[in-house]
Amino acid sequence: MSLQVQPRLITLEGGEGAGKSTVLAALREALAATGAEVLCTREPGGTPLAEQIRGLLLDTHHEPATPEAELLLVFAGRAQHVSETVLPALRRGAWVVSDRFTDASYAYQGEGRGLDPEFIAELERRVVGIEPALTLLLDVPVAIGLQRARGRGAADRIEAEREDFFERVRAGYRARAQSQPQRFHVIDASQPADVVAAEAVARVRRLLEAGA
Amino acid sequence: MSLQVQPRLITLEGGEGAGKSTVLAALREALAATGAEVLCTREPGGTPLAEQIRGLLLDTHHEPATPEAELLLVFAGRAQHVSETVLPALRRGAWVVSDRFTDASYAYQGEGRGLDPEFIAELERRVVGIEPALTLLLDVPVAIGLQRARGRGAADRIEAEREDFFERVRAGYRARAQSQPQRFHVIDASQPADVVAAEAVARVRRLLEAGA
Repeated sequence: MSLQVQPRLITLEGGEGAGKSTVLAALREALAATGAEVLCTREPGGTPLAEQIRGLLLDTHHEPATPEAELLLVFAGRAQHVSETVLPALRRGAWVVSDRFTDASYAYQGEGRGLDPEFIAELERRVVGIEPALTLLLDVPVAIGLQRARGRGAADRIEAEREDFFERVRAGYRARAQSQPQRFHVIDASQPADVVAAEAVARVRRLLEAGA
Repeated sequence: MSLQVQPRLITLEGGEGAGKSTVLAALREALAATGAEVLCTREPGGTPLAEQIRGLLLDTHHEPATPEAELLLVFAGRAQHVSETVLPALRRGAWVVSDRFTDASYAYQGEGRGLDPEFIAELERRVVGIEPALTLLLDVPVAIGLQRARGRGAADRIEAEREDFFERVRAGYRARAQSQPQRFHVIDASQPADVVAAEAVARVRRLLEAGA
């Protein structure tokens, strides 16, 4: 059972403070210019139930999830998101841009928490079943990303992790991009936000031309 | 990787209105009489986070979980429950009686929702890792159980399912008990509650004698 590539699914990945919001807005504009519907969504989240699961994951005030519970909560939300939001939009011909998707689990729960990537792959095959045509990885050194993220205010449970956790996440993302160079496009996100967004838009335009 | 049998873990299984609460109280008393600590717990739930997950699962007012999301939410709560409540209690020598455990997933999410039992077994090996020494299955015809459960008031999301769902759950429980006769003890729960509780206590006393 292999994953079905979705020609109109684009995902945005990266650590804290990589500048995903600016890129997302730019992609929305570039894709809307084609006249097609554009759905921008996010993980964890993207449906009412999945947003409630996100709340449990990011909450700093209660009992923290064990690594295994965290992984299954993330995939429960993802199963719901794919079934209720992503696939219906793709079926009606929309472009879907998701702020994080399955690659984030390989980086955060796999490399970050040390869980077996084979188990993550099994969950991906069993409850996700699809993969994006293009994944933009906004890569930024951990110190720069954390400085930006902390400038935004209160840290959630993930943002409050130690720096070595984020170093493992970054390394996990980069290794994954290297192993799938056709799907991934890595952008140096230590550049100014408008430069990063322009590179992202240029890459998506190439995808549009290839599909046309 | 096989499951570790826990000599002091007893689980109680059964459909709606099987009379688990009465049995639980009787078992607590019988086990406490040995002088050991007794922890009565439940699934979904059994830790603060797992109880919040239970809330998402049983809530009738919001978006219902897809079968896959439901399965992963149940196992996320179970992973947390085992790690944070069940194993610490067993390690300090307590008896643990859980109102539902992994068998419930084979019955409800497997037979009830039609999910692959191989996937459930994989989750069990990966994030649960233990199994009870004794499982008491309170078996009652669906019509009787539902009548009792509905007499208790408002139905939650699971209780509001159709009768054929509960027939599949009952059949799933019975098949599982037949396939593991040494671990399971099936009690005819259409009998009066005190008769059911007395049979449960007698079976647990045999477990105590065998272990002494």
